[in-house]
Amino acid sequence: MQLGMIGLGRMGANLARRLLRAGHEVVAYDVNAESVAELAADGAVGASSLADLVARLAPQRTVWIMIPAGFVDGTLDGLVGLLDAGDTVIDGGNSYYRDDLGRAARLGELGVDYVDVGTSGGVWGLERGYCLMIGGPDATVRRLDPLWRALAPGAGEAEPTAGRGEPAGRTAQDGYLHCGPTGAGHFVKMVHNGIEYGMMASIAEGMAILAGADAGLTDHVVDAETAPLRDPENYRYRFDLGEVAEVWRRGSVVGSWLMDLTASALAADPDLTGFSGRVSDSGEGRWTVLAAVEEGVPTPVISAALTSRFASRGLDEVASKILSAQRAQFGGHDERKHLG
Amino acid sequence: MQLGMIGLGRMGANLARRLLRAGHEVVAYDVNAESVAELAADGAVGASSLADLVARLAPQRTVWIMIPAGFVDGTLDGLVGLLDAGDTVIDGGNSYYRDDLGRAARLGELGVDYVDVGTSGGVWGLERGYCLMIGGPDATVRRLDPLWRALAPGAGEAEPTAGRGEPAGRTAQDGYLHCGPTGAGHFVKMVHNGIEYGMMASIAEGMAILAGADAGLTDHVVDAETAPLRDPENYRYRFDLGEVAEVWRRGSVVGSWLMDLTASALAADPDLTGFSGRVSDSGEGRWTVLAAVEEGVPTPVISAALTSRFASRGLDEVASKILSAQRAQFGGHDERKHLG
Amino acid sequence: MQLGMIGLGRMGANLARRLLRAGHEVVAYDVNAESVAELAADGAVGASSLADLVARLAPQRTVWIMIPAGFVDGTLDGLVGLLDAGDTVIDGGNSYYRDDLGRAARLGELGVDYVDVGTSGGVWGLERGYCLMIGGPDATVRRLDPLWRALAPGAGEAEPTAGRGEPAGRTAQDGYLHCGPTGAGHFVKMVHNGIEYGMMASIAEGMAILAGADAGLTDHVVDAETAPLRDPENYRYRFDLGEVAEVWRRGSVVGSWLMDLTASALAADPDLTGFSGRVSDSGEGRWTVLAAVEEGVPTPVISAALTSRFASRGLDEVASKILSAQRAQFGGHDERKHLG
Amino acid sequence: MQLGMIGLGRMGANLARRLLRAGHEVVAYDVNAESVAELAADGAVGASSLADLVARLAPQRTVWIMIPAGFVDGTLDGLVGLLDAGDTVIDGGNSYYRDDLGRAARLGELGVDYVDVGTSGGVWGLERGYCLMIGGPDATVRRLDPLWRALAPGAGEAEPTAGRGEPAGRTAQDGYLHCGPTGAGHFVKMVHNGIEYGMMASIAEGMAILAGADAGLTDHVVDAETAPLRDPENYRYRFDLGEVAEVWRRGSVVGSWLMDLTASALAADPDLTGFSGRVSDSGEGRWTVLAAVEEGVPTPVISAALTSRFASRGLDEVASKILSAQRAQFGGHDERKHLG
Repeated sequence: MQLGMIGLGRMGANLARRLLRAGHEVVAYDVNAESVAELAADGAVGASSLADLVARLAPQRTVWIMIPAGFVDGTLDGLVGLLDAGDTVIDGGNSYYRDDLGRAARLGELGVDYVDVGTSGGVWGLERGYCLMIGGPDATVRRLDPLWRALAPGAGEAEPTAGRGEPAGRTAQDGYLHCGPTGAGHFVKMVHNGIEYGMMASIAEGMAILAGADAGLTDHVVDAETAPLRDPENYRYRFDLGEVAEVWRRGSVVGSWLMDLTASALAADPDLTGFSGRVSDSGEGRWTVLAAVEEGVPTPVISAALTSRFASRGLDEVASKILSAQRAQFGGHDERKHLG
Repeated sequence: MQLGMIGLGRMGANLARRLLRAGHEVVAYDVNAESVAELAADGAVGASSLADLVARLAPQRTVWIMIPAGFVDGTLDGLVGLLDAGDTVIDGGNSYYRDDLGRAARLGELGVDYVDVGTSGGVWGLERGYCLMIGGPDATVRRLDPLWRALAPGAGEAEPTAGRGEPAGRTAQDGYLHCGPTGAGHFVKMVHNGIEYGMMASIAEGMAILAGADAGLTDHVVDAETAPLRDPENYRYRFDLGEVAEVWRRGSVVGSWLMDLTASALAADPDLTGFSGRVSDSGEGRWTVLAAVEEGVPTPVISAALTSRFASRGLDEVASKILSAQRAQFGGHDERKHLG
Repeated sequence: MQLGMIGLGRMGANLARRLLRAGHEVVAYDVNAESVAELAADGAVGASSLADLVARLAPQRTVWIMIPAGFVDGTLDGLVGLLDAGDTVIDGGNSYYRDDLGRAARLGELGVDYVDVGTSGGVWGLERGYCLMIGGPDATVRRLDPLWRALAPGAGEAEPTAGRGEPAGRTAQDGYLHCGPTGAGHFVKMVHNGIEYGMMASIAEGMAILAGADAGLTDHVVDAETAPLRDPENYRYRFDLGEVAEVWRRGSVVGSWLMDLTASALAADPDLTGFSGRVSDSGEGRWTVLAAVEEGVPTPVISAALTSRFASRGLDEVASKILSAQRAQFGGHDERKHLG
Repeated sequence: MQLGMIGLGRMGANLARRLLRAGHEVVAYDVNAESVAELAADGAVGASSLADLVARLAPQRTVWIMIPAGFVDGTLDGLVGLLDAGDTVIDGGNSYYRDDLGRAARLGELGVDYVDVGTSGGVWGLERGYCLMIGGPDATVRRLDPLWRALAPGAGEAEPTAGRGEPAGRTAQDGYLHCGPTGAGHFVKMVHNGIEYGMMASIAEGMAILAGADAGLTDHVVDAETAPLRDPENYRYRFDLGEVAEVWRRGSVVGSWLMDLTASALAADPDLTGFSGRVSDSGEGRWTVLAAVEEGVPTPVISAALTSRFASRGLDEVASKILSAQRAQFGGHDERKHLG
């Protein structure tokens, strides 16, 4: 099939490459002409503008947008005048599913279909394949099946699920799923990322407990402002975090791709000196919590994972100052300046 | 009555003064001779050593220890050879209730009684009175009733509780309570401080939400690493935090002494420039969570208040670096260096 | 002044009564005619319909709506045709501040002012006064000052805040505050309730830890599915929760109106047999968390208080079943049927 | 090698079978004679008592204990008189690492070595191999290498970790790791299970959000006690949870063994009708949180996962009743009896 790809960042460029490798034709555009040239060198047809991209696609066009969520509407503004009825726009980025509803309506008035795709796989997707969570009209999603199949990992990437029976018309075992109507793809991707926040934090907290297991080997201040370590003899371990992550990759209950990556990161940089610990959040975690709250579903773990990321960036400063001020008020406590 | 006070820090000195004002006799000792001299100027009998303090007390002595938890056992080491059967030691500091059990047993072998007292009231206790949570043997606690009565605020400090009936032999309405056997006083004080952590954090978080209500008035980065603010028009408020705290002091459901103190702190320093936001924890919050976990009682709020304090001191660094490393691994995400 | 009150539930009726006591004139309407009759017996002018209520008010009318958030727009639908330019509508209920923006715009087109008021005080407000958090246009809020003053508790209800100086034109010390433009009143009330959730949960969790302190006195199952209690000797206390709440009312750091109410509840029903523990949430707690997430402010404590309420109503059932199913899968664990 | 296995439950019997398959000799004992007979049928030498088991082992014996944590000390009581200097006891169950320290000391006085092994893999370990986290003296752990190697999954079970280099004397890539001195194995296993709690809860919460995404399709009560769903059009999805779990198994960031198991569970029982949602905790999660608190490491996610399990078993009842009682006090709120 032929596809136009708008946005050739980490994700867009590799999606395009994986499609090219599978024999599909890709017309590619990015605001950065260098990115276009690089992909053209890998076999794509380069486009110099949105209009050029659309012009280079044969009708019943399919255009995949792969750009930050904040830029999608602007790009759609540029596209709407260029597309024809029967064309399809795919938003494969991390858009908010609520925006899909308005965008589908807007394009629908022009006879243009809109498909929302949550795309997981990161920089590894080119080789591993991308997990695709798809929302939109049945016929369109079905028509684009060759694209999904080319991008997804394929069934061979994991053992069949016991008891699931023959797939017969189902696709989840291949790594892509039509989740429901407009927005369903990004909804499922949003929740995926919420789970991701929680799983990442679980591993990270566990590693931090291991790292702190030497607390009984170091000296501690004894004063009224510091909790004494009651039983130092229980905290006399110096664990090799990288080797622990490595051993957990085989046979354990916590085996996971995130553990694989944690082992890789620790193998490459055992003290993680390349990181300061300011952890970004790019929207999906927030939206997951918003959805949970509106649904009335308790998500203490995912909520905690989100607020921890906020705190890692110092966004707890106002609250913490209030706490220090309260302590100064009732107890005359000065803030300790040292670590710990 | 006559009482020996060991430890003349913020708390010990004021407890002694409140007893002196009520006509009791106080023999006072501190490792810092200057503190002893100051209290002697206020009417106490100064002592130059533990031995001197014990010598100046008439038998069936009562000695109140008011020092950091980490120093109590050392002080008891010094006291045990000096005391006689029939004497009583009160630990009024923030000791771990579990230590009370061993201390009571140790002293009990010498015929010395041990009473554990959780003392709340901070620097304000001298004027407001101290809330006393008492554990230990019935007869001893009863014998010391004049001390408790002098230190506690008295019934007039709050309206009677509807439906509680006549106090008749009960003392809680006066601000002191014999909570149970050895350790019961510190157990109740421990939980008191756990509640305190949660209440403080509730107020602090609410204030932080108010402070952040101007988010729609400021510019935001638009990129793949930053969640966009979807509806800036909903965040166009600049609240006066001090005035909000003040209005909540009257008639609201959140009216509390902690809110009074928050209002005071904000009146004195509206931007809390005197504070960095590194919030200490001195043990009771930790012990509260340990007790909850061992009892199997869910305490998500108090637990979160505790972990937030840890994070305010940068103790989330290892976990946050792991998160950043994972993100770099799967998505090639660089850490953002800017705030927010 | 003259005021129309729409909605004579617990809150509306008592607000009206407090205004009547202060010499204001109240025209009152409720869908329930009996409620109207009751308030008329207390001195209000009864109205039989929205139209009747409006007709009985002299121009530059002030109409206070005090009904569940879900019914406000319907009531406004009925009112808009009846009001004249220069009139004012006050929404004193627990509306979402975001709705205020649209409502103010809608009424503004008719020249009708809109004021949003967060009202705290519950069933006690009639006697204690109501804490009022007000949003809306300056001139209108100023014009209605006699109403606020009559409803609020007044400065005498709490000690002056040290360091705040002379009030001079400020009103927070009297228990009411003009917080900002449209929506500001409900925003501050929303956060107030978020804090309330956290403070309530802090007290409740602490009480639960006290109640569980007898864990070492009871027998425990020993099997692979149950965590053994390691040190039963540390959990041999039977606390009187009501007396503990009572003692904390005086001199302690956790002294608060919520603690007063907790003591009352426990005095009336020590085992809380009248309650099943299904805790409602009426919107503000959810909205508080939504605001925090959108602002990027970490609120682990308030978030946990909210999710706990959800769980108290069994809304954690899906997640818990997934956990049980996972445990059955990896470990062959059967669910234990007994408590604990 | 020859090994004595004590405890032939799910775990012990399969460990023994895996050793037998690898050509090791197993002498097996259980309080349940039937379990012994079953394993004897699979090639083990059956023993009728602890004494019989010890007698059937050639000196420099190795005895593996695989029983619930609460029974280990009793079993050691029976063993100590039977063993000789040079023998080794392995505790492969879910013991608390702190108990290892005392047990190692007790056995050490007899010249018997003690090795603590955290064993992960559940009912699948027989086929997949067990992830082994080992603590104890170097020489002993090294001597038992053939056992570890037979039980562990082996390097082939996962891709090599990029950048880790040649294993050269390291074993983590084979699925077993000597983590450190006595207790280190159970410490790492404890943290493993803490991570497991968090990962499980992350998946479970995400699934619950997906299940609740149909909230806008159902009717909701409108009253003052129930938060209205503001935008029902955003919650009109009916997701197939099993298919979502299946698609996430390939190429996604949340791919993990726990997701595999979740997909299996949902394939077998899409509505999880076989489960009530009462989730046990068997100790390690609690101990993980205790360690984090004592170390001063913030673990909001793992803590929340633990408290959620407590709440799933109704252990939040006291706190929830207090909340309901407070609400009744300040607002006259009755508890809603319906779900939601």
